[in-house]
Amino acid sequence: MSLYDCSKKLASGIRLQDMGSFHVGGEDVEICGRPAKEIDVNGKCGRRIVVDPNGIRRAGQMYAQYFIPETVKGRCPLLLWHGGGMTGKAFETTPDGRPGWLNYFIRCGWKTYLADAVERGRSGWCPEAEEFKESPTLFNYTYVFERFRLGASYAKGELFENSRFPINSFRQYAMQFVPRWTESSELTVKAYCRLLERTGPSVIVAHSQGATLAFEVMEKRPELVKALIAVEPYGAGRNGRFGESVNVPVLWVFGDYTDLHPAWKEAREVAREYCGRFCRAGGDGQILDLPEMGIRGNSHMLMMEYNNFEIADLLQDWLIGHGLTVI
Amino acid sequence: MSLYDCSKKLASGIRLQDMGSFHVGGEDVEICGRPAKEIDVNGKCGRRIVVDPNGIRRAGQMYAQYFIPETVKGRCPLLLWHGGGMTGKAFETTPDGRPGWLNYFIRCGWKTYLADAVERGRSGWCPEAEEFKESPTLFNYTYVFERFRLGASYAKGELFENSRFPINSFRQYAMQFVPRWTESSELTVKAYCRLLERTGPSVIVAHSQGATLAFEVMEKRPELVKALIAVEPYGAGRNGRFGESVNVPVLWVFGDYTDLHPAWKEAREVAREYCGRFCRAGGDGQILDLPEMGIRGNSHMLMMEYNNFEIADLLQDWLIGHGLTVI
Repeated sequence: MSLYDCSKKLASGIRLQDMGSFHVGGEDVEICGRPAKEIDVNGKCGRRIVVDPNGIRRAGQMYAQYFIPETVKGRCPLLLWHGGGMTGKAFETTPDGRPGWLNYFIRCGWKTYLADAVERGRSGWCPEAEEFKESPTLFNYTYVFERFRLGASYAKGELFENSRFPINSFRQYAMQFVPRWTESSELTVKAYCRLLERTGPSVIVAHSQGATLAFEVMEKRPELVKALIAVEPYGAGRNGRFGESVNVPVLWVFGDYTDLHPAWKEAREVAREYCGRFCRAGGDGQILDLPEMGIRGNSHMLMMEYNNFEIADLLQDWLIGHGLTVI
Repeated sequence: MSLYDCSKKLASGIRLQDMGSFHVGGEDVEICGRPAKEIDVNGKCGRRIVVDPNGIRRAGQMYAQYFIPETVKGRCPLLLWHGGGMTGKAFETTPDGRPGWLNYFIRCGWKTYLADAVERGRSGWCPEAEEFKESPTLFNYTYVFERFRLGASYAKGELFENSRFPINSFRQYAMQFVPRWTESSELTVKAYCRLLERTGPSVIVAHSQGATLAFEVMEKRPELVKALIAVEPYGAGRNGRFGESVNVPVLWVFGDYTDLHPAWKEAREVAREYCGRFCRAGGDGQILDLPEMGIRGNSHMLMMEYNNFEIADLLQDWLIGHGLTVI
C-alpha cells in the first residue's frame, strides 16, 4: 500500500508556474587549418554555401528542461537522467501513449529537470572536434528487445511470461533510441555536475547508464545529491570509496528476469555487493527487487511499462519516507 | 496596437490538460553482412559488449512534443518547426532565460506541437543505415553570428546598430546548435506530413529551413495546413505551382538588416516575388517586414530576441484576424 497514492491524482492536468530549458557545461573548442567545405544548406535546392570547419564551436554541453509546478511539494529539485542510447524522451509519454515518470513527478509537486546526456538528443555534438574516436552505435531491434529483457528472442517475438511491456507499441519504443558513442561518459559526468551546481542539491532519479554515472557524480559532489534512485544501473561507483557520499540515501530498483540474462544478473549482484558495503559503512541504502516484492513482469524499461505508476509510487513513498517532500 | 495582448497574460503560469511526446514517420531499415563490433558500453568501465551493426533499425523518424492547454482557444493545433542546425529548443526559453514562443502560444490557448526535424535532437539518426553521404556540419560561432545577422563580424564582436539580440548570452545561443546533414530535407518533409496526418489540419509556425520545407508540405498536403507563418524562409516552394495550396493563408515575417547580407536580401526578394504571384493567383499572402513597420533591430533569430513577444503578438493578431482562434 502506498503512503501517498499520487496515481489517483493523475486524472487532473498539469499546472506549472513555469517551464523552460537551457544548456550547461561543455567547452569552447577551436579548430584551425582545415579546408573549407561547400554544402547545399537546404538539400537539392541549388543554394550551395561555403562552411568553415575551422573556428570556435561548443562541445560537451548538456540540454535540460525544467518544469516548476504551481504547488511545489518536493523540498529540492528532482532530476531525471536517462539511460544509454536514449534521451529524456524515455521519461515522457510511454510507447503506448500513457503518461511517463516526467508527468508523474511534476504532478507530485517536484520541480523536475529532464536532461539529455552529452552528445544525445538536444545536447548536440561536435563532429568537427573529433572528440570521439569510435563510430557511434544505434542499437538494433534485436538488441533493444533482448538486451533490455523484453523477451529471450526478438526473432521469435515472444515476450517473457507476465511481461508488462506494451509490445504493440514496440516501434514507438525502438524509435526513441539515438546513436551513442562510448567515449562521452566523462563529459556527461562533468555536465551532470554543472547541472547540479545550477539546480542546487537535488534528488536524482536515473536509469541504466544514467544511474551508473550518477554514482560517479555522487562520489564527486556528494553535497549536491540529496538522494539517489538508481533504476537498473549497470555497475556502481568508480573509486570504491564512499567518502562523504555515504551520507546520500540510495535506493536501487531492479525489475524481473535479471536471472535470465548474465549481464543483468551481474548488475544486480554488483548492486547488492555495493549496497552491503555502503550500509556497513553507515550508509542508508536499500534495494527494491520488484519480483521479490511480488511485482512480476518488468523489463529494464520499467518506467514505460503498464505498471510504471505503481513503481513510481514506490519511489515517491521512499522519498516521502526520507523527508524530502511536504506531505 | 495588438488586438489581443497576450503578453500581458504572461505573468500567470501554464495550465495544461496534458503534455507528452511521440515519434512519427521513418522506415525500418535492414542491414546485413557486416562484422560485429565490440564496444565498452559505459566507457572505460571495462565491460565490453558486442553489438551487431546488422539487423533492423528505424531511420527517418521525427520527434514531437505536445502541450494541450487547460483552456483551448485555437481552433486547430499549432505546430512549431525550427530552422537548420537547430532543434525544438529554438522556441523554448531564450538564451537569456526569458520565455520563448512555445510558452507564448501555449498560453494563448493553442494545442502546441514542438518538433525536432529528422536527424536533429531527439529524432535521432541511424549511422548504420548510411543514408547521408556527406559529413554533418556544426556551424561555428562566426557563422551563427554573421550568417544569422547579429552583426557584420564575430571577430570584432559588434552587433548591428539597434540590435535586439541578448548578446551577453551568446554561448547559450551557440550551444543550441546541433550537427546537420544537408540530405535530410526530403525525409523531414515526409515526416512533417506524417505529423500533420496525426494532428489533423493545423497552423504551422516555421523558422528558416523549417519554413522553407513548410512550403513543400503546403504544396503536397494543402488540406492539412490551415495557415502558414513562414519566419525568414530561405526560398519558398519547390514546384512553382500553387494548386490547392493557394487556399492556405500565408504570412511571411522578416527581421532587420536583410539588405546587409546578400543571402537574406535574396531570400526576402524570393518571398516578395512568391507572395506577389500567390496573391495574383487568388491567394491570401502577406509579408510582415518588421523594419518597414518601424520594428528595428531583429536578426534572423527574432523568436529569441528582446521583443520576441511583441513579434509573437503580431502573429497572434494575424491568426485571430483569420478566424483561427476563439477570442
